[in-house]
Amino acid sequence: MTALFGFALVLSCSAHVFALKSHLFRQRVPGPADTDVDYKTYYFDQKIDHFGFLENGTFKQRYLVADKHWHKEGNPILFYTGNEGDITWFCNNTGFMWDVAEELGAMLVFAEHRYYGESMPFGAESYSDAKHLNYLSSEQALADFAVLIRYLKESPATNRSAVIAIGGSYGGMLAAWFRMKYPHVVAGALAASAPIWQFPGMVDCGVFYRIVTDDFSRGGKNCDANIRVSWKAIDKLSSTDEGLQWLSREFSLCAPLTKGFDLKSWLQETWVNLAMVDYPYKANFLQPLPAWPIKVVCENLRFSPEVPEQELLSGVAKAAKVYYNYTGEASCLNISQSATGNLGMMGWFYQACTEMVMPMCTDGVKDMFEPQEWNFQAFSDECFSMFGVRPRADWAAVMYGGKAIASHSNIIFSNGGLDPWSGGGVLQSPSESLVAVWIPEGAHHLDLRYNNEYDPKSVLDARQQEVAIIKQWIKQWAAHTQREL
Amino acid sequence: MTALFGFALVLSCSAHVFALKSHLFRQRVPGPADTDVDYKTYYFDQKIDHFGFLENGTFKQRYLVADKHWHKEGNPILFYTGNEGDITWFCNNTGFMWDVAEELGAMLVFAEHRYYGESMPFGAESYSDAKHLNYLSSEQALADFAVLIRYLKESPATNRSAVIAIGGSYGGMLAAWFRMKYPHVVAGALAASAPIWQFPGMVDCGVFYRIVTDDFSRGGKNCDANIRVSWKAIDKLSSTDEGLQWLSREFSLCAPLTKGFDLKSWLQETWVNLAMVDYPYKANFLQPLPAWPIKVVCENLRFSPEVPEQELLSGVAKAAKVYYNYTGEASCLNISQSATGNLGMMGWFYQACTEMVMPMCTDGVKDMFEPQEWNFQAFSDECFSMFGVRPRADWAAVMYGGKAIASHSNIIFSNGGLDPWSGGGVLQSPSESLVAVWIPEGAHHLDLRYNNEYDPKSVLDARQQEVAIIKQWIKQWAAHTQREL
Repeated sequence: MTALFGFALVLSCSAHVFALKSHLFRQRVPGPADTDVDYKTYYFDQKIDHFGFLENGTFKQRYLVADKHWHKEGNPILFYTGNEGDITWFCNNTGFMWDVAEELGAMLVFAEHRYYGESMPFGAESYSDAKHLNYLSSEQALADFAVLIRYLKESPATNRSAVIAIGGSYGGMLAAWFRMKYPHVVAGALAASAPIWQFPGMVDCGVFYRIVTDDFSRGGKNCDANIRVSWKAIDKLSSTDEGLQWLSREFSLCAPLTKGFDLKSWLQETWVNLAMVDYPYKANFLQPLPAWPIKVVCENLRFSPEVPEQELLSGVAKAAKVYYNYTGEASCLNISQSATGNLGMMGWFYQACTEMVMPMCTDGVKDMFEPQEWNFQAFSDECFSMFGVRPRADWAAVMYGGKAIASHSNIIFSNGGLDPWSGGGVLQSPSESLVAVWIPEGAHHLDLRYNNEYDPKSVLDARQQEVAIIKQWIKQWAAHTQREL
Repeated sequence: MTALFGFALVLSCSAHVFALKSHLFRQRVPGPADTDVDYKTYYFDQKIDHFGFLENGTFKQRYLVADKHWHKEGNPILFYTGNEGDITWFCNNTGFMWDVAEELGAMLVFAEHRYYGESMPFGAESYSDAKHLNYLSSEQALADFAVLIRYLKESPATNRSAVIAIGGSYGGMLAAWFRMKYPHVVAGALAASAPIWQFPGMVDCGVFYRIVTDDFSRGGKNCDANIRVSWKAIDKLSSTDEGLQWLSREFSLCAPLTKGFDLKSWLQETWVNLAMVDYPYKANFLQPLPAWPIKVVCENLRFSPEVPEQELLSGVAKAAKVYYNYTGEASCLNISQSATGNLGMMGWFYQACTEMVMPMCTDGVKDMFEPQEWNFQAFSDECFSMFGVRPRADWAAVMYGGKAIASHSNIIFSNGGLDPWSGGGVLQSPSESLVAVWIPEGAHHLDLRYNNEYDPKSVLDARQQEVAIIKQWIKQWAAHTQREL
């Protein structure tokens, strides 16, 4: 369980809305020995405000550099456009870059996004109020990246290097936007599982949860059907104290349940997370999980949806424990773990409440969730009460172009068929140099993970294609640079 | 005389630096019946801050619309990206748009730049301090344009219309940058006399004044040579009270001269302005002037540079009066006219003091001016004392790409051989769709002016080429839009 749910509790009337924002972006600091990546940590003095001159202060932006395979002047730089979390976590979870570094002779740079990890513009005050949060935006983050790269390229050893932006999820959106807005800085971008169209008016707000549902539908007989009927069953049981007690016991909750809503929000989030991390091998991204975790979850939900409520919910509880207690180490499950100490979540909430407005909705028919419409006004009101700011629904489209991106170049949009975020992704190549890569068996940015013996062929092919295209960009950059100098 | 000089006086140690910034951007509200343009005036509620969410206020952005020739749904929109001045003045001085509106069946829109004309984010307080000035930047202005166009295209009549950005001088820079940063909003940009490379490290800081000098060198025998020796002569005469009195009389100054520096700054500005408006016909852009005004000026400077100081400066005074009193209506010349009421100048100073850092220098050898090096630190210190902000020398390059613009598309960069700003312009086509247009006989954005019987063939050809390319962009846009819908 993460911080998010704490917020979901607070935001009772549409926990939903916030829950949705969080799935993509959950951060987790890796345990020791997650990988054996080897990098050096640096800090760069960034302007707090790139777009105004009144605030002339700076902050330390953290970035990580690995140059083990970078032996030659002008060799490329793979630049991870950090998203809403601790950059070391992204560094450890972007095995693709480590896997291809030698082949490309590339330097790896992982740049932390402002307001996350250690890169706090105002130290401990950064999240204190709307005034201090005012410099948290994708535009400021992209400017940070551009300024940092300018600095990194001041040396004769790097000043001709092609820089390739790489990112997953919101980091993938940043990678794509970085190439769109700063094509003089990056030769190309690999935008993995980047839902750049999950904005108002671009895609059906129901697509995200339909994909989650499809994953569970394929996960096993009756799996989605049983989840679909579970909500009413929870309502019924949680209407009495005895029912609440029974649910608390059955789900092994650390604290007794006081209302069914909390359990439902938590479960909804659980199913979404499972859809995102339905990887073909044992992995530890959001949680330690078995290979193809949805299949394992669904083994607990094969019975007929007609079974009595308690039998149904016993199955649901077992299913949830696959996600929360695969290791068997959890003595109880904690659905009220709060946001404290997890600035990443708070940052993403703020971003969702300003420019990252991503409508989501459910209808309970084409998806297995309780019906909930997208209600911008309610969302806006919550944002205002939480941060004192209101979201600007159209801004992302104005700034980043929405679907009209064909005049840009050199971006790979990779998406996985299992990933609910693919619903807001670019699935058809908009042009010859904007290439959509489809990984039918892929969950959330599977292609950015280390090679694994259980990888489906589709992701191996995708990575191969990505590397081939990146090599083209590097050549192209060299040719340009030659001409320009 | 304009506001600028008032500032030059204040900023004694490098009036020069500021003077340079102003030539491009002088504003002047047109007199009645300057032209017979017919437009409607509108006001659009713009966010004061597009890049932060703390400041959620709005202001009224003025824009002008002329749709006399726009008869058909989906027909194009020519959009003037307003620069640092009253938009009605640009509207009246961009005859090109009025001339081609019928042929293109185009709607004309002239959008005022924030902090100029009537488009004041904080009304009368807009210029009161650095806090209120904090939203004056090219990025905010471009976002204004993008948001305004989104609004203009909400109607079914316009939502498929290709929008072509057009601008001259700083407005041309904005047009080019607009296409670079918002290619989903504008199909292409005509950037006339846009010195997008007049930034640190991109061109020789001396090129601007060398071009001015070349213009005077071609203007008549001994013309540049006499101006070159005039500075020392002024120094000598102004070293005594009698000399100062003599100069004040000779130049018909409204107020007696107290130091030679003031006269020199004013003259330097005069020669620069003449180079900018050396048009082939009688015109009234910065001042009412005869055709080819530099030739007329130089008729007063044909004597040998060996003549005695007073004879020399008598000639210079006559030359200056061509610029300041061609109509004969001025009873005296006012070199201390202050900045009061001319917010345009103040705005441009602020922009120069923040992101529009344009190095200029003179050596007195390759140009006819007194040697002055580019001194960033001194400039920065003046900015700080004036506005409490410091310029960011590299920011424009980071943001807009400097010379590495080849991956963009659909921009025409037109420049005139007589225009000193051409030194910072794009003179060679960077790619097939980034087209440089050269007008050897052209001064500052001559191509954006009305057709005139005295126009040289080169500008007629340029306009024809520009229209042909704009037509291609419109077709291209229609094809794209068809595919996307």
